[in-house]
Amino acid sequence: MDKIPILKMGEFLLVTIQVDLYDRLALALENDLINMVSKTEARGVLIDISAVSIVDSFMGRILGNIASMSKIMDAETVVVGMQPAVAITLVELGLTLTGVYTALDVEKGMELLRSKIGYLPLDEENLYDDLN
Amino acid sequence: MDKIPILKMGEFLLVTIQVDLYDRLALALENDLINMVSKTEARGVLIDISAVSIVDSFMGRILGNIASMSKIMDAETVVVGMQPAVAITLVELGLTLTGVYTALDVEKGMELLRSKIGYLPLDEENLYDDLN
Repeated sequence: MDKIPILKMGEFLLVTIQVDLYDRLALALENDLINMVSKTEARGVLIDISAVSIVDSFMGRILGNIASMSKIMDAETVVVGMQPAVAITLVELGLTLTGVYTALDVEKGMELLRSKIGYLPLDEENLYDDLN
Repeated sequence: MDKIPILKMGEFLLVTIQVDLYDRLALALENDLINMVSKTEARGVLIDISAVSIVDSFMGRILGNIASMSKIMDAETVVVGMQPAVAITLVELGLTLTGVYTALDVEKGMELLRSKIGYLPLDEENLYDDLN
């Protein structure tokens, strides 16, 4: 299992990071994600890091890279589920995650993405399309 | 990282399996999931196994266990993203995943769950609640 799955949820993509990101895996994730954004025309990327308890500058850089790449592809990136200790470490490392939005959990992240891309519910069909 | 995160998406829970399930991890997942179903009053559980390329009878049993436990808690279980080779292996192993529904991807799984729990979109607000 040397691949991080990317799940399509409506117009957003969801990635759950559960394993330590080493060089090759991180590059593969960046690559897969950008291809998925292009293929699915996703408008937002949600990265759940609730299982990540140890963070280093490499992880910080990967998150920043993904956000920058997605931005160029017209998709916003929201990192969700960050543990308090991880937030403390990031600031102590001097990593401010520029260009990355954060939210407490996936649901709040989706709400944030929806507001960022100017999603306004128009009618039932639109909402349903968004879900499916 | 010895914990599989469980994400709440509306009235469903989403679990992505990316690592090999060994005894303790599988038990922890079963435990966490049932507690989450109870806490969040979730009506459905989605288990994404798109990153799983090798399956054995243990994994098959865990999936069956989760489905049975969830069922008792009044939540349906849908396994999504199964690789063709995994399906072949499961059948060859004689594991038919009784009580487990399957769908091709998360979106189709959500649709299936919605039909199983008799979810009928009534008005915009309901749909929006479901998303958030």
